Amino acid sequence: MTSITIDDMEDFARGAAFLGTGGGGDPHAGRLFGESMMRRYGAPEIVAVDDVPDHAHCFTIAMMGAPTVILEKLFNGEDAELALNKLEKYLGIMADYIVPAEIGGINSTLPLAVAARRGLPVVDGDGMGRAFPELQMITYNVYGVPIAPMAIANDHMEVTIIETDDAKSAEDIGRAVAMRMGLSVMLSAYPMTGAQLKKSAVRGTMSLALGIGRAIRKGRQAGDPVAALLGYLRTTKYYKHCAELFDGKVVDLVRETTRGFSIGRCLFEALDGSGRRLEVTFQNEHLIARDDSGVRAMVPDLICMVDRETAEPITAETLKYGQRLKVIGVSAPETMRTKEALACFGPQAFGIDEPFRPIEALIQDRSG
Amino acid sequence: MTSITIDDMEDFARGAAFLGTGGGGDPHAGRLFGESMMRRYGAPEIVAVDDVPDHAHCFTIAMMGAPTVILEKLFNGEDAELALNKLEKYLGIMADYIVPAEIGGINSTLPLAVAARRGLPVVDGDGMGRAFPELQMITYNVYGVPIAPMAIANDHMEVTIIETDDAKSAEDIGRAVAMRMGLSVMLSAYPMTGAQLKKSAVRGTMSLALGIGRAIRKGRQAGDPVAALLGYLRTTKYYKHCAELFDGKVVDLVRETTRGFSIGRCLFEALDGSGRRLEVTFQNEHLIARDDSGVRAMVPDLICMVDRETAEPITAETLKYGQRLKVIGVSAPETMRTKEALACFGPQAFGIDEPFRPIEALIQDRSG
Repeated sequence: MTSITIDDMEDFARGAAFLGTGGGGDPHAGRLFGESMMRRYGAPEIVAVDDVPDHAHCFTIAMMGAPTVILEKLFNGEDAELALNKLEKYLGIMADYIVPAEIGGINSTLPLAVAARRGLPVVDGDGMGRAFPELQMITYNVYGVPIAPMAIANDHMEVTIIETDDAKSAEDIGRAVAMRMGLSVMLSAYPMTGAQLKKSAVRGTMSLALGIGRAIRKGRQAGDPVAALLGYLRTTKYYKHCAELFDGKVVDLVRETTRGFSIGRCLFEALDGSGRRLEVTFQNEHLIARDDSGVRAMVPDLICMVDRETAEPITAETLKYGQRLKVIGVSAPETMRTKEALACFGPQAFGIDEPFRPIEALIQDRSG
Repeated sequence: MTSITIDDMEDFARGAAFLGTGGGGDPHAGRLFGESMMRRYGAPEIVAVDDVPDHAHCFTIAMMGAPTVILEKLFNGEDAELALNKLEKYLGIMADYIVPAEIGGINSTLPLAVAARRGLPVVDGDGMGRAFPELQMITYNVYGVPIAPMAIANDHMEVTIIETDDAKSAEDIGRAVAMRMGLSVMLSAYPMTGAQLKKSAVRGTMSLALGIGRAIRKGRQAGDPVAALLGYLRTTKYYKHCAELFDGKVVDLVRETTRGFSIGRCLFEALDGSGRRLEVTFQNEHLIARDDSGVRAMVPDLICMVDRETAEPITAETLKYGQRLKVIGVSAPETMRTKEALACFGPQAFGIDEPFRPIEALIQDRSG
């Protein structure tokens, strides 16, 4: 059984930030909030997906909004718990487990914090195996869990509950509500049983985030954190196909907060003087990386940026002109690459007119 | 005791359209829907505000959206009842009475239709004594009834429930939801007891709408419907200060659907060859009428347009270039002219930088 203690939170938050693939909000803020809740209420138990009883009630808790705005707001444990409490009351069901919606940034630490406050265990798994910008982009939706009812709360203790059969419609209505309620809100959606969880979750991702953070820390001690990170990823079940896609500095950056998202693109130039370039586009999370020869990695595979010396994960909202980074491509879990999963969060779902090709095939092309 | 039968619906809908002051949607569509429900389920009982027991539960039902869009959508009794049913379930309270939110256009006939379906009585009163474009612009809000919880439903059977202490915030969130849910939605808000109703409602307005419609019909038989209309208004408790402000044709019209409203202005030129002009601005409903000498009438007083021959009320969304109309100014009920009421829906609430002056004072200025 995995545990995530206060002492693990630095590693865990760093690993989750890496899996955020540029999104997920400021991991430091999420870490501090998680730590303060654990200090007050104790660390929550972490339970494997397959150890959750079929009839147990699992509730998600997540933050919704553009990361640029999340950065500017302080946490308030009450609003997160309010979304959960209102959904429980609406359904007439109490949560037995808190289950993460995404593993990436704030939305990985938030379930720990709320579970600590409520004295509930947290499921070791999520619905994305990474972060995604929209609520329907989640394996819970792909594999049959209804998104609604969904509760949204803000720090003025305002609450909105949405009922619809259509996950994209819930995203659209929820995003409109979030923009009016302050652009950064707490939500609880996809209430599900243990049986539904087992059919739809990406297993073990909380543990994997912790493992990634630990690998980076140990790599720093050993002198090559990026190599240590890649070495660890290659030992994992999901993230084993990975490669350093680029080593460069930011020479152009376009980023705007629009439609409730951070949307833009970042251009890198190689540090080796070759003049090679890599472009990465993002909608909260990184979507596609292209160089002069073509696509290097694409959603749902992970495109992650880290500091080239320390392997510190860099989120899209903290990208800066002149910053020197390594861009790493990582395979997504297989359950996220099925035909129905790609229809939900493959390249086409983001308006990218390229068929999905897994990173291992793209790596093979280059080395062949 | 007043009754509104199927045979009364033509008069009632016409009178309500007049009180819509340019807004409230297509009265014909509302009338047909009301009639079809009454034919199937029988006409609902109409009960005076003061005959509602203090502990009775009163629920509003209304349509929200830009009238230009309402025109394009067909009615579906299920969505209206769904908003009511969901609010009842959320509160754990069943409605004893249906109470209109506004007297004006569709939102006057809709309560009759839903009450007929549900076999409930309808209160003879409303919260506006006319129509207004925003949810917080209502005497229920002015005199202490909380707007929330509020339920919104659309014809896809999607539902959103909003909880907030702030009526303007509920309007903002609700408008954003409405725009995503199809721009024309059904809502139930301001759930209240009979005691709260008595403190806040504008009494007798359903009867008054019927009276206005009857006066127009009888005026047509007698040959001067506008005179008959003005004559009837002068006998009423609220609308007794009234005047024909202008007799002219539409020479300029700017109208757009924006932020979820029909917003614009209409310019009239006198038919008497004098070259005099009158401008009326609107946000769903008419807001202020000005001629070369100054203000002729302003919100919350009513500015109504009628066909100059038939006295048929003309809504802002059916205004046409070249149309020949009479513009009539009418006093609002006194409960809508108090300091707290003017703060909520006086000229300043619409961004008009003129202090409110009642129509009777403005008439006096011109005749003096």
